[in-house]
Amino acid sequence: MFKVYDISMTIEKGMPVWGNHDGKQPEINSQPTSPDGVNESRIDMDVHCGTHVDAPLHMLPEDGSTIETIGLEELVGNARVLDFTDVNDSITREDLEKHGLQKGEFILVKTKNSFTDSFESDFVFLREDGARYLVEVGVRGIGTDGLGIERSQAEYPTHRTLFRNNVIIVEGLRLKEVPPGSYFMVIAPLKLTGIEAAPARALLIGNG
Amino acid sequence: MFKVYDISMTIEKGMPVWGNHDGKQPEINSQPTSPDGVNESRIDMDVHCGTHVDAPLHMLPEDGSTIETIGLEELVGNARVLDFTDVNDSITREDLEKHGLQKGEFILVKTKNSFTDSFESDFVFLREDGARYLVEVGVRGIGTDGLGIERSQAEYPTHRTLFRNNVIIVEGLRLKEVPPGSYFMVIAPLKLTGIEAAPARALLIGNG
Repeated sequence: MFKVYDISMTIEKGMPVWGNHDGKQPEINSQPTSPDGVNESRIDMDVHCGTHVDAPLHMLPEDGSTIETIGLEELVGNARVLDFTDVNDSITREDLEKHGLQKGEFILVKTKNSFTDSFESDFVFLREDGARYLVEVGVRGIGTDGLGIERSQAEYPTHRTLFRNNVIIVEGLRLKEVPPGSYFMVIAPLKLTGIEAAPARALLIGNG
Repeated sequence: MFKVYDISMTIEKGMPVWGNHDGKQPEINSQPTSPDGVNESRIDMDVHCGTHVDAPLHMLPEDGSTIETIGLEELVGNARVLDFTDVNDSITREDLEKHGLQKGEFILVKTKNSFTDSFESDFVFLREDGARYLVEVGVRGIGTDGLGIERSQAEYPTHRTLFRNNVIIVEGLRLKEVPPGSYFMVIAPLKLTGIEAAPARALLIGNG
């Protein structure tokens, strides 16, 4: 048997959103029950709300590719959860070097971010030198438990370094319950097209 | 190696929606690129738009449970794609009996619906007697390539029979490219809460 870890954020009014901006909250509207007993709802949300996949267009306006260019087969496969819960500010090249990263790996970074249920302005992020190191190694993708993979760096060099080198970025994971180690990963973004991101359900499958 | 089949509908303006009602179309709005080169979008959609999972509250207003009560572990596991492409109107008990269904199975019905890219008012659906048969056998869930699992039946007996017996309903699959047979299935609805459905990415994993 196997065990399924749900590593997604719940999407609901009042959830943690970037910068705690009210305008980034999702709106969920249910119609009154119809006379024949049917309930139907709509959702209006930022595509960067909760767990989501970013596409290069998010930060490369001139030539960035859109979300449908990231095939599902790139978001399904082996991934390794790495423990960075002792990191206080940002994940650096030096922090990453300890983990023996391999070309082609998809990594998920577990940090203090997974242990808070609010948006913290000093969340743990991936520093520019860390992003450059991932490109050097040839890492295929990175998932973070921050709502963003970056803060406090002018001109977004972490995002842009990763996007320019086709390293997939997944943000807003919840890794508190997941022990570090190897898993079969499925990141399942809504099948949107022509835009720069998509909200996703994300899960890991381990031995049960 | 393995092969990933994306069995989800693309969510975009002009996509097939129930009854071809304009009000059920998704709205995708991108803000102008910010001065520092960042693109951000929002999506406003019916939660029954495209591929989605229904929860009992959709049709059982008095005591129906909501979407978060369907755990991810119930949507991940083995599933069998059954060929009903020769069926013209509706899948009946008799049609289902030919397939040797087993207690606890999750089945996906591949019909003519997978071969059209528009909403057809005479789409192939699951007839009430078919739903009753699934409950008798103890099938765990059913996915259909129709935008609904039912049409043309007063008081929605197919939905209600399945919901009352905790048979999971997935609608709006795209199965054209998938040969009948057994797969590892992942249905990944957005992690919504308190409402009657959630849009989903859905995939099958087979031998590559």
